[in-house]
Amino acid sequence: MASWVPVDPCSHFSLRNLPYGIFSTAANPTPRPGVAIGAHVLDLAALSSAGLFSGPLLSSQAQSFQQTTLNSFMALGRPAWMEARQSLQRLLAAGEGALRDNAELRERALVPMHDAAMHLPAAIGGYTDFYCSREHATNVGIMFRGKDNALQPNWLHLPVGYHGRASSVVVSGTPVRRPWGQVLRQAGHPPAFQPSSQLDFELEMGCLVGPGNELGSCLSVGSAADHIFGYVLVNDWSARDIQKWEYVPLGPFNSKNFATSISPWVVTPDALAPFECEAPPQDPPPLPYLQQPQGQRRNYDVRLEVAIQPGGGGGGGSDASETVVTRSNLRTLYWTLPQMMAHHTAGGCNLQPGDLIATGTLSCEGAQGAGCLLEATWNGSRAVQLSDGSERHYLLDGDTVIMRGYCQAEDGQRVGFGECRGMVLPAPALR
Amino acid sequence: MASWVPVDPCSHFSLRNLPYGIFSTAANPTPRPGVAIGAHVLDLAALSSAGLFSGPLLSSQAQSFQQTTLNSFMALGRPAWMEARQSLQRLLAAGEGALRDNAELRERALVPMHDAAMHLPAAIGGYTDFYCSREHATNVGIMFRGKDNALQPNWLHLPVGYHGRASSVVVSGTPVRRPWGQVLRQAGHPPAFQPSSQLDFELEMGCLVGPGNELGSCLSVGSAADHIFGYVLVNDWSARDIQKWEYVPLGPFNSKNFATSISPWVVTPDALAPFECEAPPQDPPPLPYLQQPQGQRRNYDVRLEVAIQPGGGGGGGSDASETVVTRSNLRTLYWTLPQMMAHHTAGGCNLQPGDLIATGTLSCEGAQGAGCLLEATWNGSRAVQLSDGSERHYLLDGDTVIMRGYCQAEDGQRVGFGECRGMVLPAPALR
Ligand SMILES: [Ca+2]
Ligand SMILES: [Ca+2]
Ligand SMILES: [Mg+2]
Ligand SMILES: [Mg+2]
Ligand code: NI
Repeated sequence: MASWVPVDPCSHFSLRNLPYGIFSTAANPTPRPGVAIGAHVLDLAALSSAGLFSGPLLSSQAQSFQQTTLNSFMALGRPAWMEARQSLQRLLAAGEGALRDNAELRERALVPMHDAAMHLPAAIGGYTDFYCSREHATNVGIMFRGKDNALQPNWLHLPVGYHGRASSVVVSGTPVRRPWGQVLRQAGHPPAFQPSSQLDFELEMGCLVGPGNELGSCLSVGSAADHIFGYVLVNDWSARDIQKWEYVPLGPFNSKNFATSISPWVVTPDALAPFECEAPPQDPPPLPYLQQPQGQRRNYDVRLEVAIQPGGGGGGGSDASETVVTRSNLRTLYWTLPQMMAHHTAGGCNLQPGDLIATGTLSCEGAQGAGCLLEATWNGSRAVQLSDGSERHYLLDGDTVIMRGYCQAEDGQRVGFGECRGMVLPAPALR
Repeated sequence: MASWVPVDPCSHFSLRNLPYGIFSTAANPTPRPGVAIGAHVLDLAALSSAGLFSGPLLSSQAQSFQQTTLNSFMALGRPAWMEARQSLQRLLAAGEGALRDNAELRERALVPMHDAAMHLPAAIGGYTDFYCSREHATNVGIMFRGKDNALQPNWLHLPVGYHGRASSVVVSGTPVRRPWGQVLRQAGHPPAFQPSSQLDFELEMGCLVGPGNELGSCLSVGSAADHIFGYVLVNDWSARDIQKWEYVPLGPFNSKNFATSISPWVVTPDALAPFECEAPPQDPPPLPYLQQPQGQRRNYDVRLEVAIQPGGGGGGGSDASETVVTRSNLRTLYWTLPQMMAHHTAGGCNLQPGDLIATGTLSCEGAQGAGCLLEATWNGSRAVQLSDGSERHYLLDGDTVIMRGYCQAEDGQRVGFGECRGMVLPAPALR
């Protein structure tokens, strides 16, 4: 599958992928939908204005591509998404001249990626974070409750989740300020208010919801997949010292709500379909409303990594190289996204287009399988070594955390998520 | 303070109040801003179109009153709100003819309340629920941990809160479906999926945020008050059986996210100012970022009650009378709303216009001081008697929960919130 747009063999954005995002340029600062192809962004507002979405569904929905977010397009649902994908794959295919040979439109519509500023792909009305990696929940459980009580009693029966803060979801590249917060430095003593000294990343993935459901209705596990517009990488930044003190009994709050970063490109289920794989078996079997028919418990084989680049790298200046500190994969996720959505809506909660549903920290077995520093350093008790000779228990100011994820086909072509990156800025001056 | 619009002496909506809401009528189904006065709604879109907001700030912001939510008006900030209040109090004052004597405009702009359908006052982007009544936290603590450990160690040091689900906030009058969910019927046995049998109300109040703060910045306790547009009654419906099983370790989720009801009229700080009262002393004194100067720890003296009306009353048909089951007051709230907002933003979390911040269940001392049935029935161990001879441990299908709140001036005039009501519908058929 080749395109007339040059695509590097290692590019995450081959013709099989075509992820959606929202971008702007210096020449046209209005955010608008685009699709990534190789090292370019294809401007969907320009294509749509030129009448190149001529299928039966999208020809009457041209305004969906003239928005500053993808929410309208997300709300259209699978048939419209499939039509868009077909149109785009045809326009970009090697040998197809409709766009390639229209120099004026091509110049306008095909923007070099380095000239594009990326924005949040959607207005995210609701952000829910789950806790669905068994390896992660087990590690955290052993750390705090010992091996015999590692998993809480409910964990194998339902996908545990909580509502996050949607307003502070930011797009990759946005720096993240180390938060101030209350921490308990010594048990039995009063807490202190100070910048977090245990700032962590959490390697997660998330889906963005397409069509939602009405309040009072629910999604079955079988129908939930059709409500997933696509997937992104998620860094659920976490302040462990704040979290430990605040989270009883209502869950994490200020330890999380200062920022959550997502990758700008939304990879669609159609692009990921070839990389489906069996999800882990579930024992005990879940209750019927969470059961997926035999052979239909599917994850995707997404190779994930987290790198730390010290010293403000990526912002220009220092070129300290990165160290990969985590290698993980979506494939071992215990509760699948459709199960999370079925559970989320089981009581009637309404999902809406653009909602973000994250998996929770994705840890795997193996030396580098820890999806966060809490696990990698075993609650701060041992250090992670970086290639510049320094070590980390938790993140330092100036560190850039870079998450990457991709699927690799047998021919080597990739369907990838690009990067989700963020640099840690020092805490604000004394409050 | 009298108006040429008739105002019953017991009305919550005297000329001192002028709460804002969003309404529509059969004749004009477009939702638009209005103000309650006596038994009427004054149409602000109509007034604005007629040029009656002629002050220096609002004359250039006429579009704020031509919206389907109050978010734009909320974002304008206190000076604009004060100008609007002055204009409205003048237009409605006894002796003022500009509106009274303009028969055509008056007919159009003054809508009988019973002809108005009320909508959510704002597009609520973020909903945060706190847990700030000491009486409530103490009761719940004694119930589950005994008298000696009633308050968790963090409770006196920070306003404990969690992120709620904004998409399922509904306006008073919207029926609420009993949720299905996972419950643990017997410890050590597998959970069951069933309609909640412990459906509860939580009597709360909340504020709607006016101007927000940028991500990475914070609000001081001193500045937070200027970011409060106004207050509403909140019923944080809760499924106790679902909550008990799901909430460890990340907090309540499906036990809350099926519905939260708010009253349609937003009562402003200016209307409430005469009813300020001292908030309870805080011992230990909080950390500096949460401290309010001596004499500036203020709540409002809002008399609150909850009534249960069995058998589908309010929806027409049965006229079973209500029973007041709770009498409480906002005045005993331990952490004030400005403290909650300072804490919420302490790590840099951004608030946005229209966000809802709720107090948590407002319980008081006294025989009827319990702000929810969990407390009133002491975890279901004793019944609440209703005037029709029936009793309740938790809510039954067909019950309507009615919350009311008002402040009373020395001359008997009221500044009130009206009602927040919702009827319990049976759970949906088997899922
Ligand atoms: Ca997380
Ligand atoms: Ca509550
Ligand atoms: Mg986060
Ligand atoms: Mg609720
Ligand atoms: Ni009438």
